[in-house]
Amino acid sequence: MPYELYYWDGLQGRGEFVRLALEYAGAEYVDVARTEPGMKTMLKTLGSKTERYPPFAPPFLKDGDLIIPHVANILFYLGPKLGLAPADESLRAIANGLQLTITDMVAEVHDTHHPIATGLYYEDQKTEAKARAGDFISNRMPKFLAYFESVLTRNGGKHIIGGGLGYVDLSLFQLYEGLRYAFPRATRHFAKDYEALSALHGSVKRRKPIADYLKSERRLPFNESGIFRHYAELDQEP
Amino acid sequence: MPYELYYWDGLQGRGEFVRLALEYAGAEYVDVARTEPGMKTMLKTLGSKTERYPPFAPPFLKDGDLIIPHVANILFYLGPKLGLAPADESLRAIANGLQLTITDMVAEVHDTHHPIATGLYYEDQKTEAKARAGDFISNRMPKFLAYFESVLTRNGGKHIIGGGLGYVDLSLFQLYEGLRYAFPRATRHFAKDYEALSALHGSVKRRKPIADYLKSERRLPFNESGIFRHYAELDQEP
Repeated sequence: MPYELYYWDGLQGRGEFVRLALEYAGAEYVDVARTEPGMKTMLKTLGSKTERYPPFAPPFLKDGDLIIPHVANILFYLGPKLGLAPADESLRAIANGLQLTITDMVAEVHDTHHPIATGLYYEDQKTEAKARAGDFISNRMPKFLAYFESVLTRNGGKHIIGGGLGYVDLSLFQLYEGLRYAFPRATRHFAKDYEALSALHGSVKRRKPIADYLKSERRLPFNESGIFRHYAELDQEP
Repeated sequence: MPYELYYWDGLQGRGEFVRLALEYAGAEYVDVARTEPGMKTMLKTLGSKTERYPPFAPPFLKDGDLIIPHVANILFYLGPKLGLAPADESLRAIANGLQLTITDMVAEVHDTHHPIATGLYYEDQKTEAKARAGDFISNRMPKFLAYFESVLTRNGGKHIIGGGLGYVDLSLFQLYEGLRYAFPRATRHFAKDYEALSALHGSVKRRKPIADYLKSERRLPFNESGIFRHYAELDQEP
């Protein structure tokens, strides 16, 4: 039975971190909300009164009857099944820690355009977004990326943990790609500032399953409904 | 060998979710940064050039040589060892999902007083904090709590998952306690609005290991350095 991924249609968003793992591993999956009547099915699950453990929000994964919510949780679950997690259990806990640091950074990226309220339009919190994005570019982004660069480097540079490319590496690819889309000016020295991350990003991009996926219709383009949004006024020199 | 918990001294913060699990289970642990020279040891680990997988930020747990960062990750690791996680592996994934929803809510609580920059003082982002706290109280807090109330209720009300009190319940206790401290006005109908959560909160508070812990010096009071801060101007009618 194929995995069922549930995430909003029309944007990469947080669902993309799961998609990349499924695509890289060549796993059979259905991107439910992009089928008919998938959106309805997803909303029904979210609002279910009978499901014992309904998810709070997308993305969530269905594997048979089991519903697993939260990106890091989904990847922790899928990792060993897809051959994208370390064999050693202690290392899996560390991989999960790295993934949760990515989760934190992604939440901060989201808040660069929505610092006041998720339910309001960007246009209604633009001034505050400028302040938050400025702090993100000057302080938070370098702090997070220097950390990932450093862990990646001390593990040889080819993958951040374990003996081969894993789900954390695929998420780092997406993070790097997303930041470059959202902040082309702020990220223009990335190749020099984060050599190992840049090399990892290139290496993931060239791998056949990922290269094929990126060319396919299954990969939506970045846009201003997702996490990584390009608003020129939020971008600035690094 | 006792567990070593590393978290900033002087505040409950995110470390408290781990502390409550350790305390409830009667586990042997050292709260390292509250010993001498624990702060130095913690900062040394955070800045380590030799540690292969240094944590990005506190809290982190040391179990022998293994360093585990992130609250949900630590609790996922400790849960089975402390008898605070479901026996079934699928249920453990669901418990982790619930805990990660708590993590998300805690991050949003933090941002009510720091919507623009973690590195700036509250006083320098007070106007934005008022807007964000207003949205949190009106929209986000009810959304999160109605969700937990609903899952708790459909599981019988005594614990949110599995066959007995677990780490997610202890975290829900802390969430409830913290919200009441931070927003006494906004939360004054909690007993009526969230009956199951209120009952769980009371039941956890009365259990001997928790009651003893709350009276001890190990439990720091809430204060305006932690996640849950009481600023009267951010509080409002529900």
